[in-house]
Amino acid sequence: MSEPLTKTERTRLRRAPTRGSHDRAAIHAILDAAPLAHVAAADGDLPVVRPMTHWRIGDFLYLHTAKVGQLAKLACDGKTLCVSVAIVDGMVLARSAFAHSVNYRSVTLFAAATEVTDPAEKEKVLDALVDKVVPGRSGLLRPMTTKERDATLVLKMPIDEASAKSRLGPPRDAETDRDWPVWAGVIPLALMPLPPVQDSSQPTRLEAPALGPWAGSPPPSGQD
Amino acid sequence: MSEPLTKTERTRLRRAPTRGSHDRAAIHAILDAAPLAHVAAADGDLPVVRPMTHWRIGDFLYLHTAKVGQLAKLACDGKTLCVSVAIVDGMVLARSAFAHSVNYRSVTLFAAATEVTDPAEKEKVLDALVDKVVPGRSGLLRPMTTKERDATLVLKMPIDEASAKSRLGPPRDAETDRDWPVWAGVIPLALMPLPPVQDSSQPTRLEAPALGPWAGSPPPSGQD
Repeated sequence: MSEPLTKTERTRLRRAPTRGSHDRAAIHAILDAAPLAHVAAADGDLPVVRPMTHWRIGDFLYLHTAKVGQLAKLACDGKTLCVSVAIVDGMVLARSAFAHSVNYRSVTLFAAATEVTDPAEKEKVLDALVDKVVPGRSGLLRPMTTKERDATLVLKMPIDEASAKSRLGPPRDAETDRDWPVWAGVIPLALMPLPPVQDSSQPTRLEAPALGPWAGSPPPSGQD
Repeated sequence: MSEPLTKTERTRLRRAPTRGSHDRAAIHAILDAAPLAHVAAADGDLPVVRPMTHWRIGDFLYLHTAKVGQLAKLACDGKTLCVSVAIVDGMVLARSAFAHSVNYRSVTLFAAATEVTDPAEKEKVLDALVDKVVPGRSGLLRPMTTKERDATLVLKMPIDEASAKSRLGPPRDAETDRDWPVWAGVIPLALMPLPPVQDSSQPTRLEAPALGPWAGSPPPSGQD
């Protein structure tokens, strides 16, 4: 059992707290199981949110983006960011519209980001992104050049102020609706890899690698 | 060809503009192809972003949430919201880490939301959400009660200030990297329905319905 994160006013679970947790291992597992995060910042009164590739090493979340861009600027100015990672695990089909739901796992994280500038750390961190996508791939690639390394902005956020939420299991219809004559249950969903498409410029057929465990894993089963 | 949306300072495409568009039909198609949106607001200096179920009718985007909650309050106060919808279509595996990419389709929308309060409109709009999840299902359910209708907050946003971005196609490695001996290409990804799990409280086996076209559709092919 990992040590839970400390709740703050921003990560206190206001709604449906039984679906929520501050457990560190649960939060890490959800972050690792998704290919994409949504990152938000406030530009004065205006909210800005963008999808970004994210990855995790230990108690830090990493993001990368080009050096230009509104969010990159806000992040480099030290503004607090809010990151949301959400995985859709299934559609919950009930007897009433009201009892319909979505099975999901999500994490919300608040933190200011710092730029990773140390060259050795930056290369190690970027290798970890490649290895999240395809385990072991970073060692097979044409080595990174200084120019490439410098052109990428890598941001690092501590995973301290975060919470997880999820819904799992069958519909929870009112007892009085149980006999309503319509199919009820869950249609699970998962982000599945489809047949790989090798680049047509490669003259010989090589075996395609497998994506990391974030892809193609069936959603958790059971009930929350 | 649908009439494009007007660009604004907030939806002008700053980065990689060739991957972006203000085409109304393209924006609508991406919104319809995703089960989940990320909705952000600024609470003073603090950004807040949450996953929410979204759906579209004509030129309006709808969101629904419980009446309590920080984002619901900010939305009802008339704050500008930023909505991001992103679909991961595949991992682009190149010969260098730098040329790795993600194939995706995304939309960013800015607007203030208004609450849908008219009872007849609200029921029609909530029926459209059920019918997005499973076409034709709203007519088969136990009818909505007044209490259920009143317990749900439905928000409506005009799809006027929005832009779409996407990436499609194979890796674009430098010419000098083409012979590097590692598999290169795209591993497409799609949110696929898995075998349905009927609610164990139903005494007879019924045929499970099919989810809408947002689920299980292969990603677009070709090149951008």
